[in-house]
Amino acid sequence: MTLSMYQASVPVFLHTLAALSAVLDKAAAHAAERKIEPSVLLNTRLFPDMFPLVRQVQLTADFAKGTSARLAGVEVPKYADTEATLDELKARIAKTVDFVKSLKPAQIDGSEEREITIPIGGQSLAFKGQPYLLHFALPNFFFHATTAYDILRHCGVGVGKRDFIGPMAA
Amino acid sequence: MTLSMYQASVPVFLHTLAALSAVLDKAAAHAAERKIEPSVLLNTRLFPDMFPLVRQVQLTADFAKGTSARLAGVEVPKYADTEATLDELKARIAKTVDFVKSLKPAQIDGSEEREITIPIGGQSLAFKGQPYLLHFALPNFFFHATTAYDILRHCGVGVGKRDFIGPMAA
Repeated sequence: MTLSMYQASVPVFLHTLAALSAVLDKAAAHAAERKIEPSVLLNTRLFPDMFPLVRQVQLTADFAKGTSARLAGVEVPKYADTEATLDELKARIAKTVDFVKSLKPAQIDGSEEREITIPIGGQSLAFKGQPYLLHFALPNFFFHATTAYDILRHCGVGVGKRDFIGPMAA
Repeated sequence: MTLSMYQASVPVFLHTLAALSAVLDKAAAHAAERKIEPSVLLNTRLFPDMFPLVRQVQLTADFAKGTSARLAGVEVPKYADTEATLDELKARIAKTVDFVKSLKPAQIDGSEEREITIPIGGQSLAFKGQPYLLHFALPNFFFHATTAYDILRHCGVGVGKRDFIGPMAA
């Protein structure tokens, strides 16, 4: 097995998206037990000018979707940011997982030098596929996944780092 | 350029360690300006049973050091966890960067199937090199780097996601 662009993207996204979905299950159980209105969790931020939980989860899913699509050279599907419950966030993750799983290794492998252009704050940023994945997409994906987890930890949800890392099959 | 185990590890760690060091500079400036005792920042946690900033930075550095060493098949250097200031945390990062930079691509490339055993909570966990890097080491590295950033954001330090992602050279 030689490391490939597919191996370094799709399975990485799928692993952490599954873990994040399970973390949201624990958040829902916590909210039910403490009689916390779930929308409170969705709108919690670590600081007033940071994104709240709902946006952190949407962005985690979007980095998985956008990165996989761009590396494969296919159009990035657009999903409306309308989630208002934990169940809807889980559905957003599930829909993202379905899309990411639909991409085949042959579409993504060999994309090291593919020209990738992404819109950021009204500008365009151009990358080659490999630095785009390693130095932009993966850090952003884990940034938002971790911040979603950190918000829930800060709210007292009983999760640990093992929930974030997910099953550690060798 | 074909993706390799070296490319997917050492430069990824170096990129984010440099960004984290610059985030600590901004934290030091913030503490000086607001007359915040820097040890307050080092000991801030997002929840009482989470690790404080000092430990998050140590663990970020240790995942870079340990992963690079294990993939290269060399002994993992041991650094004492004695940092008590932001400058000392920056020195810990710098020492880690020096070690990680000392490893050559030829030592790490081809480590996809290398047997890696790590101690976790008194037990041993065995991996092949590729899943170790992609599904355990990188998620842990970014988990602690992001949580360090999130703690500083929560403390009001004026940093943004661009500080975390670092320079986005294509």
